[in-house]
Amino acid sequence: MRWVLPDYLRDELPPAAEHLERLRRELLDLFRLHGYQLVAPPLIEFLSSLIVGGGEDLRLRTFELTDQLSGRTLGVRADITPQAARIDAHLLNRRGVTRLCYCGPVLHTLPASLTATREPLQLGAELYGHAGVEADIEIIRLLATALERARLPAVRIDVGHMGLFRALTEGLDAERAETLFELLQAKDSAGLEEMLAQSGDELDAERAASLRALPGLYGGVEVLAAARARLAPLPAVVRALDELEALAAALADLPLGFDLADLRGYHYHTGVMFAAYGADHPSALALGGRYDGLGAAFGRARPATGFSIDLRELIARLPLAPLPGAILAPSCGDEALEAVVAQLREAGQAVVRELPGHPLEEWREAGCDRRLVCRAGHWVVEPL
Amino acid sequence: MRWVLPDYLRDELPPAAEHLERLRRELLDLFRLHGYQLVAPPLIEFLSSLIVGGGEDLRLRTFELTDQLSGRTLGVRADITPQAARIDAHLLNRRGVTRLCYCGPVLHTLPASLTATREPLQLGAELYGHAGVEADIEIIRLLATALERARLPAVRIDVGHMGLFRALTEGLDAERAETLFELLQAKDSAGLEEMLAQSGDELDAERAASLRALPGLYGGVEVLAAARARLAPLPAVVRALDELEALAAALADLPLGFDLADLRGYHYHTGVMFAAYGADHPSALALGGRYDGLGAAFGRARPATGFSIDLRELIARLPLAPLPGAILAPSCGDEALEAVVAQLREAGQAVVRELPGHPLEEWREAGCDRRLVCRAGHWVVEPL
Repeated sequence: MRWVLPDYLRDELPPAAEHLERLRRELLDLFRLHGYQLVAPPLIEFLSSLIVGGGEDLRLRTFELTDQLSGRTLGVRADITPQAARIDAHLLNRRGVTRLCYCGPVLHTLPASLTATREPLQLGAELYGHAGVEADIEIIRLLATALERARLPAVRIDVGHMGLFRALTEGLDAERAETLFELLQAKDSAGLEEMLAQSGDELDAERAASLRALPGLYGGVEVLAAARARLAPLPAVVRALDELEALAAALADLPLGFDLADLRGYHYHTGVMFAAYGADHPSALALGGRYDGLGAAFGRARPATGFSIDLRELIARLPLAPLPGAILAPSCGDEALEAVVAQLREAGQAVVRELPGHPLEEWREAGCDRRLVCRAGHWVVEPL
Repeated sequence: MRWVLPDYLRDELPPAAEHLERLRRELLDLFRLHGYQLVAPPLIEFLSSLIVGGGEDLRLRTFELTDQLSGRTLGVRADITPQAARIDAHLLNRRGVTRLCYCGPVLHTLPASLTATREPLQLGAELYGHAGVEADIEIIRLLATALERARLPAVRIDVGHMGLFRALTEGLDAERAETLFELLQAKDSAGLEEMLAQSGDELDAERAASLRALPGLYGGVEVLAAARARLAPLPAVVRALDELEALAAALADLPLGFDLADLRGYHYHTGVMFAAYGADHPSALALGGRYDGLGAAFGRARPATGFSIDLRELIARLPLAPLPGAILAPSCGDEALEAVVAQLREAGQAVVRELPGHPLEEWREAGCDRRLVCRAGHWVVEPL
């Protein structure tokens, strides 16, 4: 059965493929009008470049190939963000702010969830070169606008801050910090408690109490005041909370929520992080955040923040209106017919040329709902 | 050096990536207006589905992966045409004519030439369900129009016909036929002579003489008359020459050439084949042809013809005009400013919001050539 596809992969057929194309164009145009310049990095690179800073989860998601030319291991990108960071750091090499966007397929060895595809169509916008929270604010607003344009407005945008976790675990043994990270990601309070009990030698009581408090710090903007009261007032903690407050003030019109233990996303994140949710669906429509550490791996440290969306996931959730039908035109005719066909196409109408020997029923099946016929010496469009 | 890419792979940076996107849209729109419906098959499939009918050359070009879910071997598509044939034969399942188009990346293990990329951006149009030469004519005209729209008009479209070779080698031992195929592809006359001498037992003198004549049959439309005189008048040979003559008559306004020994392309081709060339460059801009055999592998035999183009190759040959610059706008301002920014974007202008602390020089470097300033209470655009 040669026509069977592997699990979690699919064909986009008409009209879904056309809707996907329209959404792609609409969102890339939106980014362009906001000054985000398009880049298109390759599908495959040396594995080591692709998984920079992404941690074990990104590596496990990445399909590996052997390069017959170099003998080295290649990866099929599972995420475009590290590629954009490479382009900003090494190729464009601008001193100031660089805004980039992209849209292309990525592959995952295993689906991220039971409803996910292994071939997301990743669309994203990234802002490099500005460390201030103004960049995070711009990126979150752009994401909200993009989801509105897609007719899937965010009903909730959960914001967190990786700086809190990093400040609270600074100096901790790397393996232990990694375990704490996973426990918080999983919201495993019992496991967290046990781990904190074991880490007494490396973690002072104040930081342990703060880590213990994190999973409870979620809700509206009032969470930020609660965090000021309950978290250790380390300089990096204060800075992170200041950023979140500035963000909450600037984006007061958006449905922001705060979840200070939310560590979703890749390991490369360092600051403000966020996830946008649509109505009636538990999984996030888009993820993003700050990742100031990635550029250094490509030779130049650069502040960075951005987001990405899987357009296939978006399309799967949208009600897809039927597309307009086509107009059937005789295969060959006079100059007047050719002129009418050209005019109709110029006006955006799809015109299908008839091929000999096929009954009208077949043309209907192919999507024609009108046809060109000659009436009293004039070519006119009639229902088919 | 994590920023180094593997050989024969590249990033498309601004403005090339934007030009690529514009060309993609222009050509997909052209196809849509001619009734070709967009499909988007997956990047990876079971290897056996991807290389159907493509012969050894397609298999060697295809990167292989292991599917962790099924344990089976997957391939990264090296050609989208077999996927479109699968969709027509098995998924759409229409009785009549189906016109499909697509645009997406493919990967090749090795570059097709010293100047080729290993990641072509394959754009193509395919016409299923019509066996007559009218379909080949439509497809070649669409290709010529597409190249004109890309501002790289074809200066020569070489046409051949796989039916000639198949008729002249029918009944021959498969391995011997394969060797003959390769010798003709390589235009190796000495090797061809030797092979024909060895095949005397399987090949009558008339067919041997015909095969010997093939490499000399290239040039203008007069080649078709010469072929009538020099090739064995087998029914399939006569049919092929009839098709080529109908095609030459219908496309007399295009720069057609005929090369009856031209067997480029994949093994799945069965009838009319063609290659389009631009000025000042020896390699083809686009390839295509008839491949009536492929659908059967997916459960339903269907006549089929189409072409594909590598958009990256096209872009590499085009002079790329600089793109318009962006307008810098203050980071926050009054409602009047917000209204002006929205209007400018509505009118298609890219407006970049300023972020604090960056000198004007950096915004120029980022592509801003104008800025919004407040003069006498009005926001106006001035050169930067």
